[in-house]
Amino acid sequence: MSSGRISELDLIQRISRGIKNSPSVVRGIGDDTAVLKYTRNKYQLFTCDMLIEGTDFFPDTAAKDIGHKAIACSLSDIAAMGGKPKYALISLGFPRKQAKEFISGFYKGALALAGKFKTNIVGGDLSLSEKIIVDVSMIGEVLKKNLTLRSGAKPGDLIFVSGSLGGSLYGRHLKFTPRIKEANYLVSNYRISAMMDLSDGLSLDLHRLTLAGKVGAIIYEELIPVSGSAKSLTEALNMGEDYELLFTTQPKEARRLIKNNPFFKIIGEIRKEKHGLKIITKDCREKILEPKGYQHF
Amino acid sequence: MSSGRISELDLIQRISRGIKNSPSVVRGIGDDTAVLKYTRNKYQLFTCDMLIEGTDFFPDTAAKDIGHKAIACSLSDIAAMGGKPKYALISLGFPRKQAKEFISGFYKGALALAGKFKTNIVGGDLSLSEKIIVDVSMIGEVLKKNLTLRSGAKPGDLIFVSGSLGGSLYGRHLKFTPRIKEANYLVSNYRISAMMDLSDGLSLDLHRLTLAGKVGAIIYEELIPVSGSAKSLTEALNMGEDYELLFTTQPKEARRLIKNNPFFKIIGEIRKEKHGLKIITKDCREKILEPKGYQHF
Repeated sequence: MSSGRISELDLIQRISRGIKNSPSVVRGIGDDTAVLKYTRNKYQLFTCDMLIEGTDFFPDTAAKDIGHKAIACSLSDIAAMGGKPKYALISLGFPRKQAKEFISGFYKGALALAGKFKTNIVGGDLSLSEKIIVDVSMIGEVLKKNLTLRSGAKPGDLIFVSGSLGGSLYGRHLKFTPRIKEANYLVSNYRISAMMDLSDGLSLDLHRLTLAGKVGAIIYEELIPVSGSAKSLTEALNMGEDYELLFTTQPKEARRLIKNNPFFKIIGEIRKEKHGLKIITKDCREKILEPKGYQHF
Repeated sequence: MSSGRISELDLIQRISRGIKNSPSVVRGIGDDTAVLKYTRNKYQLFTCDMLIEGTDFFPDTAAKDIGHKAIACSLSDIAAMGGKPKYALISLGFPRKQAKEFISGFYKGALALAGKFKTNIVGGDLSLSEKIIVDVSMIGEVLKKNLTLRSGAKPGDLIFVSGSLGGSLYGRHLKFTPRIKEANYLVSNYRISAMMDLSDGLSLDLHRLTLAGKVGAIIYEELIPVSGSAKSLTEALNMGEDYELLFTTQPKEARRLIKNNPFFKIIGEIRKEKHGLKIITKDCREKILEPKGYQHF
């Protein structure tokens, strides 16, 4: 594990330790979204995602694609909780040069995707900035019975992904459709024990899911659905930005799911914590799966 | 009016035109916060504020002060609606150099102020960025009967500010206490017809309040409470970042308010729209008040 990686976890833990929240906060830092008390049978979800030029997109990325991705990332977080999006705010920093063209393109992409998922853009903040910066904050809601946290996986549960992995950074990360419909189908029809979205790569995100649930996991190289745009299995494991769902469910539910919907793929099984995180290679060797996905710093 | 100014209004209007929201959005773009349907007697408030190094603070600004200001700006928006803050998310971009020290100082300032106003920090997003960027999104709530929009001012209403203006950029903008308590006192005890926070300077923000209410206004130079740190009346009119409340109420309510609480200062009167925006100088000449406050671009 790199020092950078320890540092990220360490920073988040430092921040979390300083925070004391009221009982109306069902879940604060540490999942795809915060979970807040709301009505008798629903929770409210609250999340934000910041995208920065040079890291999350590039100087030549089309404004429309930046707008699409900014909304898509927050929608993906809401999906991962089993919820539905409701409202979004967009904070946008952009250079003075060609500001009107940028804003026009950006909102074209953002509004098209928000409209598709019935998300209301209710405000924001505009600032000048040398580099383009976008932060989308989003409110969603979830039926209490449908809430899926990262932490619910149990030994024996099977591990699924909602689509193929790897190679997203060659273009798909700017065009992906967040898995709102798939997630809502899953939580409405199956008992999903844990769920998160794959933003930083399967190996790192599965590591986080096992940490949250205090469990271990084993996955199989030959079961991993590798995207046509990925250059290697390593990219499917570590490249990040797939924005597919990673979720777990008991074997009985899993059988029912794959029978009804072969779109979702089993990639492995949850084990007890002491087994750690393992991968079975195509030649049947068991190796430690190193969490090598994208680290923000 | 400069071309930059037309451009800002124009951009916001362009964005607004493209947006069609559901009936659950009581107020979208155009006030200090969005207003959303919530419970039988309350609305939910939703706002965000982005601060960028070089514009809203400087490379030598203490991390603690950046944390304080980031929370304070969103609290000020919630206050301006007559509401109370509940939950906040913090998106933070920062350079790799001295990241731990920065994060530690930033959260010290942010958590101290959030705690003071019972605001739960429920999550956020951390990214590496060459320059420091902060975006705070905040959820609040307001009793329906207490909601104060920018648009409610009527001819004959008196115009108030909650404190002295000008010179904030010499230091106060990093240390100010948002007017949550004062705003809650006002809306709980008086019929406030319109309210907003003074972020971009009295002349520009009063211009916005009159546009929203389709009214005119006249203010008096000698009534404007000029801060001890302001170098001139011009700074009190145009410098921005005062984060005081600007509000209006009928003369009868105004008399009751100043009798009970001389802390709030009358600065003028709302007129019909056709009168435009005027200022009476100390030597009793009537002049057009040009909206010359801070323009974001």
